[in-house]
Amino acid sequence: MTTEHISSHLQRLWSPEVRTLEPYVPGEQPKIDNLLKLNTNESPFPPSPKVAEAIIKVLNEHAEPGNSLRLYPDPDASALKQAIAAQQQLSVEQVFVGNGSDEVLAHIFKAFFIQDKPILYPDISYSFYPVYSQFFNLKVIQVPLADDFSLDVTGYQQPNGGIIFANPNAPTGVFLPLDKIEVILQQNPDSVVVVDEAYVDFGGQSATSLISKYDNLVVCQTTSKSRALAGLRIGMAFAQPHLIAALERVKNSFNSYPMDRLAIAGGVASFEDQAYFEQTCQQTIDNREQLVAQLTELGFEVLPSKANFIFTQHPQYAAMEIAAKLREVGIIVRHFNKPKIHNFLRITIGTTAQQNRLVARLGEIC
Amino acid sequence: MTTEHISSHLQRLWSPEVRTLEPYVPGEQPKIDNLLKLNTNESPFPPSPKVAEAIIKVLNEHAEPGNSLRLYPDPDASALKQAIAAQQQLSVEQVFVGNGSDEVLAHIFKAFFIQDKPILYPDISYSFYPVYSQFFNLKVIQVPLADDFSLDVTGYQQPNGGIIFANPNAPTGVFLPLDKIEVILQQNPDSVVVVDEAYVDFGGQSATSLISKYDNLVVCQTTSKSRALAGLRIGMAFAQPHLIAALERVKNSFNSYPMDRLAIAGGVASFEDQAYFEQTCQQTIDNREQLVAQLTELGFEVLPSKANFIFTQHPQYAAMEIAAKLREVGIIVRHFNKPKIHNFLRITIGTTAQQNRLVARLGEIC
Repeated sequence: MTTEHISSHLQRLWSPEVRTLEPYVPGEQPKIDNLLKLNTNESPFPPSPKVAEAIIKVLNEHAEPGNSLRLYPDPDASALKQAIAAQQQLSVEQVFVGNGSDEVLAHIFKAFFIQDKPILYPDISYSFYPVYSQFFNLKVIQVPLADDFSLDVTGYQQPNGGIIFANPNAPTGVFLPLDKIEVILQQNPDSVVVVDEAYVDFGGQSATSLISKYDNLVVCQTTSKSRALAGLRIGMAFAQPHLIAALERVKNSFNSYPMDRLAIAGGVASFEDQAYFEQTCQQTIDNREQLVAQLTELGFEVLPSKANFIFTQHPQYAAMEIAAKLREVGIIVRHFNKPKIHNFLRITIGTTAQQNRLVARLGEIC
Repeated sequence: MTTEHISSHLQRLWSPEVRTLEPYVPGEQPKIDNLLKLNTNESPFPPSPKVAEAIIKVLNEHAEPGNSLRLYPDPDASALKQAIAAQQQLSVEQVFVGNGSDEVLAHIFKAFFIQDKPILYPDISYSFYPVYSQFFNLKVIQVPLADDFSLDVTGYQQPNGGIIFANPNAPTGVFLPLDKIEVILQQNPDSVVVVDEAYVDFGGQSATSLISKYDNLVVCQTTSKSRALAGLRIGMAFAQPHLIAALERVKNSFNSYPMDRLAIAGGVASFEDQAYFEQTCQQTIDNREQLVAQLTELGFEVLPSKANFIFTQHPQYAAMEIAAKLREVGIIVRHFNKPKIHNFLRITIGTTAQQNRLVARLGEIC
């Protein structure tokens, strides 16, 4: 039911601020046969086989199937934090986990960004940032990206109550090197700087290596992309313990048990299978480079991507039109009808076969 | 890391309001051998065996184990909403689901209670209500329970921006009949009245039957108690569609995908197995009546309970002392060190064998 259909008489019962919320719109999940879904940046490869094994083990812990589910999970998800810390070479006190990185980001906004000064983020970035800002009634300054879609570090020198950006950026895929991130961290010693690294495992470099050096840095990651666990909802944040403590305070004032028993066990198994992780990330990178070459051949311009997607435009064909034509043949890519990027398409990296199907269709369209 | 250990220099980076948050403290989950855990109101019985079956089916949907987990879940959890609606005899538009009823409650506070007037709840009730109130910076009036720990309906006639109470109440187990709830609903036509029914399936009567009649009623329930799925994190709210729409707006401004694929599938299976649900609820009720008889025999006073726990005191022995002595022999019950109830213990209903172990020990103590 959309807001328009609800009378003001019935809306009287809502919190006034909820009437003006503009919720996030996730990439669609249509149920169409033989659909090629290249619109939500899911992995084309399955998760580590150890994930399913670990989940089935939890279900069979007792004589009765599923009996372990009658008990609350560990509210602290300690086992998961330990597995993540070991893989990331961090201490457990530097790790926070939540119900997908969206929940982690929401808690980050509450923990650090409720400030008198405005928070700063790029004008083109993850479209959930403006939603959180509205949810928490924040003042915001959107800092324009440079003309080449790179992050303009000089824009983050103005007074602010916090900074957040995705790296690689979404939906562009463009990566900001760590030396530039250090400039932002150093210029803003009294602001928390959040680097949202949902896509960092595909050739980027994580800012986790900077955590010991900067007491104002928070790094956010997810298992939804590089670990092929979008269906299991595990996100995490890394920072010095005093920032993690703020996140724990917020989490424990909102929902004590966000991670269910199966997600905890599956997450542990994923983080313990480093070889599989590295292999599938490399395969994604290889496929990306192949797709970039194929698209370039067809006359597309592709932004330099370090993500599991590419952001591309064609000088002769409108993005919206290409997207519509692809949809007719069961291929879905993502189009953002927004200033500066309305002629771009975001295309998720797939298997070689999937990409060949896409490229064949694009060859007919363009 | 507790707040006390964090210097004000490091706390400079927190949102100021986070410094004063007092997070919820869940019942402890100690890892002790042969522990008898009667402190967090989990079911002593396993969930329906169909839950584990359904989860394993999701894991085996594709040739590669766990491959379905690479895809995002349905953000709307439609299958789960449908199963719940069918069991509750509601329409899908009257159902909201979330990551445990704690998350659902948090969204309820945001969706309805951000008002100029104070919200009302009982002075003795679920201890997360004050935490949410602080989280959302609400004005609150705590309405005293009557001397017999029943809810005093006359206390809810004062001007307010919303009302919430647990029914049966926690931690007392005392149930408020629906005719009294109707009085509150009628006296407060411009406030949302939330009936938190985490424990309603053990002999209480649900207010869902009143939803079609009152446009200001929200009923909240959970699968953590009567469906033995505390480990899976599924909560739900029922109301007329204009109130569900407000909850969806809030949810989609916070976390689009709070329900993972396995929780959705397990939840569906649980709601489809009505016979198993009814049988285990009845067994819990039977065990409760047995425990009440045994404790009364030992001189305990037990409040009338419609929950899967009882709230009890002994005229000669201090509750804190009894709890300490039980702990020495590996039995954990819950004690709240709060005014009016500091001499009570909340004891979760167990299996007959568990309860006999408890009663034997109490016989030695009292």
